[in-house]
Amino acid sequence: MALYVQKYGGTSVGSVERIKAVAEKVKKFKQQGHDIVVTVSAMSGETNRLITLAKEVQSIPSPREMDVLLSTGEQVTIALMSMALEQVGLKVRSYTGSQVKILTDSTHMKARIEDIDVQKIRSDLDAGAVVVVAGFQGADLAGNITTLGRGGSDTTGVALAAALKADECQIYTDVDGVYTTDPRVVEGARRLDEITFEEMLEMASLGSKILQIRAVEFAGKYKVPLRVLSSFVDGPGTLITIEDDDNVEKPEISGIAFNRDEAKLTVMGVPDIPGVASKILGPISEANIEVDMILQNVAEDQTTDFTFTVHRNDFDQALLILNNTAKALNAREVKGDNKIAKVSIVGVGMRSHAGVATKMFDALAAENINIQMISTSEIKISVVMAEKYLELAVRSLHSAFELGRKDSISE
Amino acid sequence: MALYVQKYGGTSVGSVERIKAVAEKVKKFKQQGHDIVVTVSAMSGETNRLITLAKEVQSIPSPREMDVLLSTGEQVTIALMSMALEQVGLKVRSYTGSQVKILTDSTHMKARIEDIDVQKIRSDLDAGAVVVVAGFQGADLAGNITTLGRGGSDTTGVALAAALKADECQIYTDVDGVYTTDPRVVEGARRLDEITFEEMLEMASLGSKILQIRAVEFAGKYKVPLRVLSSFVDGPGTLITIEDDDNVEKPEISGIAFNRDEAKLTVMGVPDIPGVASKILGPISEANIEVDMILQNVAEDQTTDFTFTVHRNDFDQALLILNNTAKALNAREVKGDNKIAKVSIVGVGMRSHAGVATKMFDALAAENINIQMISTSEIKISVVMAEKYLELAVRSLHSAFELGRKDSISE
Repeated sequence: MALYVQKYGGTSVGSVERIKAVAEKVKKFKQQGHDIVVTVSAMSGETNRLITLAKEVQSIPSPREMDVLLSTGEQVTIALMSMALEQVGLKVRSYTGSQVKILTDSTHMKARIEDIDVQKIRSDLDAGAVVVVAGFQGADLAGNITTLGRGGSDTTGVALAAALKADECQIYTDVDGVYTTDPRVVEGARRLDEITFEEMLEMASLGSKILQIRAVEFAGKYKVPLRVLSSFVDGPGTLITIEDDDNVEKPEISGIAFNRDEAKLTVMGVPDIPGVASKILGPISEANIEVDMILQNVAEDQTTDFTFTVHRNDFDQALLILNNTAKALNAREVKGDNKIAKVSIVGVGMRSHAGVATKMFDALAAENINIQMISTSEIKISVVMAEKYLELAVRSLHSAFELGRKDSISE
Repeated sequence: MALYVQKYGGTSVGSVERIKAVAEKVKKFKQQGHDIVVTVSAMSGETNRLITLAKEVQSIPSPREMDVLLSTGEQVTIALMSMALEQVGLKVRSYTGSQVKILTDSTHMKARIEDIDVQKIRSDLDAGAVVVVAGFQGADLAGNITTLGRGGSDTTGVALAAALKADECQIYTDVDGVYTTDPRVVEGARRLDEITFEEMLEMASLGSKILQIRAVEFAGKYKVPLRVLSSFVDGPGTLITIEDDDNVEKPEISGIAFNRDEAKLTVMGVPDIPGVASKILGPISEANIEVDMILQNVAEDQTTDFTFTVHRNDFDQALLILNNTAKALNAREVKGDNKIAKVSIVGVGMRSHAGVATKMFDALAAENINIQMISTSEIKISVVMAEKYLELAVRSLHSAFELGRKDSISE
């Protein structure tokens, strides 16, 4: 008998029929003798509906009231899910974030969980009930409703699993696990049975939007075994594990992530003096624009070129700001490009295997793909290229690192 | 400077545009220097949408989960209303029933308010904020979400006004006050400047669906001045007052209420022995059918006829039950009629004026309207007639008691 925290996302509870299907799934686990805590998102489309309403009322909606508004989405789902579970004969108890209580800080719309009081949940489980908890939400010390930001239901699931010392946190989603890369791009992409937290972190932050980054960090920190599965198809999914260096021979890389949401900006011919980087990025960050990659090569002729990437939506605004900064800094020129893509290979194995970078660059060169930027971390190598090469690059890398299914014809 | 609790119902907050209009209205009061507490219903249509969802999931939805579900309706409105108030430049603070906290008993879906903690509201008002409270909902001692039943937002408004010792509880609705009768039936129906709580109670329970009965009882009990006004048209509305016998010469009657939601059932030739009434009504009440009028005349030949009315929706079921009971009691016959209407004249003045009943019966007789049943209370006389006479009866009574506008041609 195990204790599972199961998180069902928006599409898994997107209609009455799907909610009923989840109830049947939970019933099977219950019949096997397991204790189940279910945490749910808002029904798909609901959060967007509420955001649209808010924006019609207030030009910049109050963050506190936004949380009051958005938290109703998950509250509706816990009620309907509890009804569905009762309907299939289970004992059930629902809780909002405030009721649990899931204590967060007071940062509305992106609050962080500080503590979870599991007393009520424990006693409900002891009484044989399935417990249904609203994901994505909590309350601060003063009792104000808070939300954790988009995708926060994953974090709720992991935090509940950590607080309850659950045997596994199961994230049910519309994919049946983590793949070596996007199967829509590479036909032979293969589901991974296991992936380490670190690899998953790199995969998640690079655009494999299966899990919220914060949830993965949280799971890694509290050593919560995390499993990604499909709520529509039965299967083992992908287990996200704590790395165990000694036992297993790791493959060089586990997967290929990519991202076409970014745009690149470069200031050319900036005087190479201390403090320039912060003078360039300061105004960008003041405008609340997030910067991903930052690159500055060695200086030449007392000037240097400074490049960074931002989300494509922020490109125009960033370009405007950068032009002003460039003038103030007496820089030579500003260049921008929003037709780029970032492709990354990820794997804890690359720590101990030499030549991974070389193999990557060789594979891309063989396809005549020009690399514009390179950036590396301990378990990841990212390259930026023209967007048009994205699919070709991913396919050639998938093949070069032999990530495909053994039975796949396309590999 | 006064403190007003203002309640806005579902149609008053039925769209973004209407919510914005309410915000403008509140701003005017605030500019006049008043303190304002706003309590709101769910946007019109929302509660029904949620009920439909629930019934698709669970054949008989769990009352506890129903309250979790339905309470989201008002929560959405407080968030949007607060945003609208901020948008017009006001300082604002929203609270759900749980947050206030509005303490209720644990009777889900028809909970009663036991206490309201006004501490937070007071300090927000002192800080110059408009306070927005979700109507219709509260929480029990254990923190479970409860709702007060349909129309419960009125009760929330009155309870808040009582707890805050507000100068007035203003119920904004889609009518501009309480009328002598339904203006759709009598063209010359007149808005009353004042009506007593007792009269309003009789009017409300008889089908003038402006205010929830429990809210009026509550207001009477705690002597909260209650005013019904339109949220769309400016005007003084109708003030519901505590009766003050000595000062004012009261008119004989204040208004005419009517109701075509009822059906009549009669058991004829029941043995006139003790306990018969409870034997007849027992099975009806066990089936959760509510009974309105009950009539039993003096016995003749050791048998009697027993008549009662139920909601028209319950007619078929009640008839079935009554037929079984009649057999068991050896009654002669069961008769039923669901084409009836009840017309009532209401007024505290009738206590001190003789001949009100006579005048009523005369007026009906003059139109050849046959009276099937009569029932009276201290400030009300109700008669049941064939449904087809309803409009004629109401018009002739309105005229006989001179209730119309002085400038009205139709009177």
